[in-house]
Amino acid sequence: MAKEITTRVNDYSQWYNDLVIKGGLADYSSVRGCMVIKPYGYAIWENMQAALDKMFKETGHVNAYFPLFIPKSFLSKEAAHVEGFAKECAVVTHYRLKNAPDGSGVIVDPDAKLEEELIVRPTSETIIWNSYKNWIQSYRDLPLLINQWANVVRWEMRTRLFLRTAEFLWQEGHTAHATAQEAIEETEKMLDVYATFAEDYLALPVIRGKKTANERFAGALDTYCIEAMMQDGQALQAGTSHFLGQNFAKAFDVQFLNKEGKQEFVWATSWGVSTRLIGALIMAHSDDDGLVLPPKLAPLQVVIVPIAKPGEELNKIYERVAPAIKELKAKGISVKFDDDDTKRPGFKFAEYELKGVPVRLAMGMRDYDNGTVEVARRDTKEKSVQQFEGIAAYIENLLNDIQQNIYNKAKSFRDNNIREANSWSEFQQLIEQPGFISAHWDGSPETEEKIKELTKATIRCIPLNNKQEDGVCVLSGKPSKERVIFARAY
Amino acid sequence: MAKEITTRVNDYSQWYNDLVIKGGLADYSSVRGCMVIKPYGYAIWENMQAALDKMFKETGHVNAYFPLFIPKSFLSKEAAHVEGFAKECAVVTHYRLKNAPDGSGVIVDPDAKLEEELIVRPTSETIIWNSYKNWIQSYRDLPLLINQWANVVRWEMRTRLFLRTAEFLWQEGHTAHATAQEAIEETEKMLDVYATFAEDYLALPVIRGKKTANERFAGALDTYCIEAMMQDGQALQAGTSHFLGQNFAKAFDVQFLNKEGKQEFVWATSWGVSTRLIGALIMAHSDDDGLVLPPKLAPLQVVIVPIAKPGEELNKIYERVAPAIKELKAKGISVKFDDDDTKRPGFKFAEYELKGVPVRLAMGMRDYDNGTVEVARRDTKEKSVQQFEGIAAYIENLLNDIQQNIYNKAKSFRDNNIREANSWSEFQQLIEQPGFISAHWDGSPETEEKIKELTKATIRCIPLNNKQEDGVCVLSGKPSKERVIFARAY
Repeated sequence: MAKEITTRVNDYSQWYNDLVIKGGLADYSSVRGCMVIKPYGYAIWENMQAALDKMFKETGHVNAYFPLFIPKSFLSKEAAHVEGFAKECAVVTHYRLKNAPDGSGVIVDPDAKLEEELIVRPTSETIIWNSYKNWIQSYRDLPLLINQWANVVRWEMRTRLFLRTAEFLWQEGHTAHATAQEAIEETEKMLDVYATFAEDYLALPVIRGKKTANERFAGALDTYCIEAMMQDGQALQAGTSHFLGQNFAKAFDVQFLNKEGKQEFVWATSWGVSTRLIGALIMAHSDDDGLVLPPKLAPLQVVIVPIAKPGEELNKIYERVAPAIKELKAKGISVKFDDDDTKRPGFKFAEYELKGVPVRLAMGMRDYDNGTVEVARRDTKEKSVQQFEGIAAYIENLLNDIQQNIYNKAKSFRDNNIREANSWSEFQQLIEQPGFISAHWDGSPETEEKIKELTKATIRCIPLNNKQEDGVCVLSGKPSKERVIFARAY
Repeated sequence: MAKEITTRVNDYSQWYNDLVIKGGLADYSSVRGCMVIKPYGYAIWENMQAALDKMFKETGHVNAYFPLFIPKSFLSKEAAHVEGFAKECAVVTHYRLKNAPDGSGVIVDPDAKLEEELIVRPTSETIIWNSYKNWIQSYRDLPLLINQWANVVRWEMRTRLFLRTAEFLWQEGHTAHATAQEAIEETEKMLDVYATFAEDYLALPVIRGKKTANERFAGALDTYCIEAMMQDGQALQAGTSHFLGQNFAKAFDVQFLNKEGKQEFVWATSWGVSTRLIGALIMAHSDDDGLVLPPKLAPLQVVIVPIAKPGEELNKIYERVAPAIKELKAKGISVKFDDDDTKRPGFKFAEYELKGVPVRLAMGMRDYDNGTVEVARRDTKEKSVQQFEGIAAYIENLLNDIQQNIYNKAKSFRDNNIREANSWSEFQQLIEQPGFISAHWDGSPETEEKIKELTKATIRCIPLNNKQEDGVCVLSGKPSKERVIFARAY
């Protein structure tokens, strides 16, 4: 029997947890708020990393690694930054344990107190800009285009597997530029990289936009983001790219000699995506039978289940499929022949559905005799009988179809669930339905706060290339030039 | 002018630091004992990771990720383990900062004290076996073959870039097995993987062996290691693989139902290599002009320096070499055409020598007219003029030659510097020379300690498949059945 999954309609949140745990993606750990990423979940992350890393390198970035620890005083150097992160920091105060005098185990050695406490990085702007100070002297040293793959810690009080955990894995790009214009272009370029990655790999349609001042990264002049809609209609921020102006350069005194021979502060960007994308992937596409993974990120793309008695029958089937397996692998398609005879085919089918394997082939002796194979696609659950001859090419096309279909489905769901609200009563009604609201807003942080207080909806973004139109704010009635996207969010 | 490098004979230790810093591999950070791995150094680590990760997967392992933090009580559960690591632990005691009442910045919020302190992982046996408890019920769940790429922290008092830092990057494999025999086989298999990697990629000949009880990993029944000789004759432990017996299974109560239907404790191994291998790479092969990198790990394998005036001359040369660049890239060889006209060719030559780029091509107009190119190999510094026609194939072979030559040179140096000591006076003489000593030892920890005290030499390993011969211990004169390897070590 397959593991039981709560249905979405019964309890969306429990459905999500069931998929993560029973699908073998992650597990709770004994450390508050920290998760274990299990091999199947980590394999998805590895596929994401490989694709992103390639895109970063193709856009001229290199990887490096900076310390896990940040001296407390560094965090304080940029005022908005410390304000944003101080309340959720893991703090290292000592560097040694010793045996308890009463023999009860080990205790923290009070003699090993650090002179200055160290913060486990919640993000690395400060420690990195402290290094950049030594690396940048002249315009010839710019731009500096560096990315880091790392773990970070933010002591969240309410955690959720993948979506919000005390420790998570991510990449953080930190670039340094000679001009504001160049830094803004970089910020926008990386947003584009993220949007392309989300759409092409995660099959996740996203809205590119800018955050309001309220929702900006702590220390940024401008935060760009991509926002995606989950199946419950809530928003999930899938990536951010920040234009940091000269804030960190000023905080760490990073100046360069420009072409005109004058000292000037350096311009900065930072941008990141994290393991939260695995959460997005699950919530955007999966169904009540389990995960639905886009083929480009699925750890296993094709499984072949023989329906045959061990021995001669099984051997015959294996001999038939072996060349196709080889052909698929040569195409870079991952495939597994599951001849485990301790599990029945029905059990295996359910298990691979739960795991979201995009394509399942089944071959019994009748198929064998007919030169056919049963092909089941995970996304639509459609089954069909295909000629076995030429099956590798058929599957290659099918995987592309599935990738596209998952995207189309998510896009049409998203597009059908963005609604315009033109009055406060309309807004209040619509916010109780799943989906995003497109509405006029007067541009003030106060109104934004008030709407959040009243409805739990936040402004997800001001879309890029937004249509300019005259209107009035849904709450205050004050004039507005454009609509923004409101939603409740993860 | 090239950056000045201290010579090995003048100050070996300073020479090493110069290469790391001036070669752009790493930098000191503002956090005590923590380094910044700069892009060029990190690119070497990425190449190491890619090769090792492939080898791990080919031997059936998968990757996962476990929490950075370990509850203090977990560390205490395995007695030898906590004894080994307690004295060098970074301890998290609080989870929040707050504004100082006097407005002087941020301070640790005393109200945010953790009930139980968290240790930043120095290694992950305890947190991982605490998870394995939930993952393993029956022999069907075994073996569990998991690897993790992670950062770890050991609060070393005396640090050295790459070789010994408070934080370092590594991989740690943690496997679980149904029988002792199977776990021992895994321990040995992974030692073989490390030895193959060291020899084939790092071009570093290693001695495979076992550690003495004194030098074992804290919590292991047996520690296998690979030991390499650096150019100053000192030893560097390049990787370890531990047979942990049932120690961690017992500490975390991880039992499984065996095929006979009985509960039994699980058998364990762990194994790891770290960024210290970058230090090994540098110290084993480099020279007074800079790094010498084995082609298989060099971030840049080939550089082409045109010696021509900008404009027509440079264009001609570029047009000539462009197809060869394409051909090299198609072979998977990394290549750069350096047409930066702000630096003179001599400066570039010195810079690429410092960086250890294995092959440098230079083409001036005379070469252009003659259809030739100058080829300089970094390892031997030999230059030759070659026909440009067919240069890609020539370079491909040359890179293989260089890889082999670097290995052969290190191996002949190593082999020439292992000497037998058959008496204590001979031992005392030889230990003042660079190199390893092969000598009889009576097998007692006391003698081992005494020799260390008197000479700073430790037993690096008892080589695998060691020749059995009757002898007497160099210090105690007691009988011995085999020689072991002594050296001073990093």
